[in-house]
Amino acid sequence: MYTIAVDAMGADNSPDAIVEGVNLAIERYDDIRIRIYGDEAGIQEHLKPSSRVVVVPTTEVITNEEEPVRGLRRKKDASIVVAANDVKSGEADAMVSAGSTGATYASSLLIIGRCKNIDRPPITALFPTINPSRPRVLMADAGANPDMRAVNIEQFAIASAFYSRNILNVANPTVGLINNGTEEGKGNALTREAYDLLKANPNINFKGNVEPREILSGVVDVLVTDGYTGNIVVKTMEGVSKSLFSLIKSKIEDGGIKSKLGGLLLKDDFNSLLAEFDDEQMGGGMIIGVNAPVMVTHGSSGPIAIMTAIAQMRTSLKSQMVEQISDYFAKSDEDYE
Amino acid sequence: MYTIAVDAMGADNSPDAIVEGVNLAIERYDDIRIRIYGDEAGIQEHLKPSSRVVVVPTTEVITNEEEPVRGLRRKKDASIVVAANDVKSGEADAMVSAGSTGATYASSLLIIGRCKNIDRPPITALFPTINPSRPRVLMADAGANPDMRAVNIEQFAIASAFYSRNILNVANPTVGLINNGTEEGKGNALTREAYDLLKANPNINFKGNVEPREILSGVVDVLVTDGYTGNIVVKTMEGVSKSLFSLIKSKIEDGGIKSKLGGLLLKDDFNSLLAEFDDEQMGGGMIIGVNAPVMVTHGSSGPIAIMTAIAQMRTSLKSQMVEQISDYFAKSDEDYE
Repeated sequence: MYTIAVDAMGADNSPDAIVEGVNLAIERYDDIRIRIYGDEAGIQEHLKPSSRVVVVPTTEVITNEEEPVRGLRRKKDASIVVAANDVKSGEADAMVSAGSTGATYASSLLIIGRCKNIDRPPITALFPTINPSRPRVLMADAGANPDMRAVNIEQFAIASAFYSRNILNVANPTVGLINNGTEEGKGNALTREAYDLLKANPNINFKGNVEPREILSGVVDVLVTDGYTGNIVVKTMEGVSKSLFSLIKSKIEDGGIKSKLGGLLLKDDFNSLLAEFDDEQMGGGMIIGVNAPVMVTHGSSGPIAIMTAIAQMRTSLKSQMVEQISDYFAKSDEDYE
Repeated sequence: MYTIAVDAMGADNSPDAIVEGVNLAIERYDDIRIRIYGDEAGIQEHLKPSSRVVVVPTTEVITNEEEPVRGLRRKKDASIVVAANDVKSGEADAMVSAGSTGATYASSLLIIGRCKNIDRPPITALFPTINPSRPRVLMADAGANPDMRAVNIEQFAIASAFYSRNILNVANPTVGLINNGTEEGKGNALTREAYDLLKANPNINFKGNVEPREILSGVVDVLVTDGYTGNIVVKTMEGVSKSLFSLIKSKIEDGGIKSKLGGLLLKDDFNSLLAEFDDEQMGGGMIIGVNAPVMVTHGSSGPIAIMTAIAQMRTSLKSQMVEQISDYFAKSDEDYE
């Protein structure tokens, strides 16, 4: 039986959507318990009673606008702080939050703690691809660490490959380095150095540079990059896809009867496409390299996204992913210090 | 009368598409002359005879695969090298190429020469936006300089604002810094320093950080960023829009009769949308900060893209943009050295 701590607060639809996600997860998986943190009355209103769910009432919330580390220090009764403390003490085994990404990241690092020899735990992002034989690509770092060294990118490759194997069932995950050109020698000072490290490491199935125009083509299983670039990629993708869909929509609306009819006929197709590009199915970003599985989902997460995140935390616990990562890096003192 | 040097070689459809673009430009503008460089027989085959066009036969081409500076040194009779030498000697006033971007950039810097006090001339990119009152946004650097200092980004802001005013007719162009968050203090070491420089410069109408999810929203006239990030943004946009259109296409093709009919009815709308996202209308990227207007267009440029690029070089010459940029930076020794 695995116990997963779920922060019910700080999201766009807190606590309703989070509680409903918990209800779905409890119904689907009979080998999990959930501890859910936040406003007691609000949680109880939507919670399906279950012997496997414990509500932990908390009175404070760290918002997106707050500086995360300061929030952590000041708000001892914030839902994410209490949840992280429960993971640290062993009351819970993993954590999910749709609240402030910064606060979840800070709680993971400062309360749950980093694995030995991982300097900068990355946050992952999972994208759909247009390649049916490789329908998802995992990227790290999606934004946790704007400034870093090449050795951190090498660590991301190792840590993300564990995720790809353990949670996404990819046998021997291929790794690509996001870069502004495919040839060896392309890039800035950081990516050129990272290329050399990735190429030299026998534990990484490295396939070379990948240009961002191939991100959704499904050419590798794992993409690594520094957190600044990763965040730029994620936000550019978000901006372009939203702008394109909005342009298509206004073409249809401003068009004649032909366009409107066409739009009506394609409505289901567009909706299923939008769903594929939605975070809901992807389950959020995992913080890899801390002493427990932690997942951050989008602030707008609905019940399905929360359930998916809980499911991935369960898979991660069952497969002992954190222990594997921790063992790997503990043994590699000489490489990483 | 302005003389524009046009490199006919090195593009996907060289020299046909380039020559046809020249024909269009000569027909449309009676105050320009064109010198066109490349394979004489191939050019003559498509060229409409005109007293305002001179064919300059060249025998070599620097390809995309070649290391640009080495290509420049070895191939003295490469079309781009001969064209750049003509600009340097005053035979021509501006230059357009759809060939190797690297070779065009290297020829511009090493043969035509940099303006005083501009260390790293950027390449611009022009994107369509979803904001009808600000339908285009200019970005620099789109990829010329992967490693740079914050002061270079400040220079991009100044130089790009001249482009925005002189060629795009924007009265008092607003400038945004591409960053991974909107608040002051966000970013990596480079963007935090660039933010401070941009904010402190009274000659820049600085509006703060812009997240890439807003790039196509049309929130500012000019976006500045280092060349590594700019290139990542351009290539992510390209990848996402291509993947989305390919997903829409396969939804329609794999769908039932309803989807197929819807696709047929929306065909014109999709095509006009694709055209908006096409380089054709945008005229390529300008190298700003060299001693003459130079434009690099996409390797797949058709006649319209070439004509648009020639038109922008004409506007740039008429408005004396290079002289204005050169004057500005010549006076600012103390700031930029």
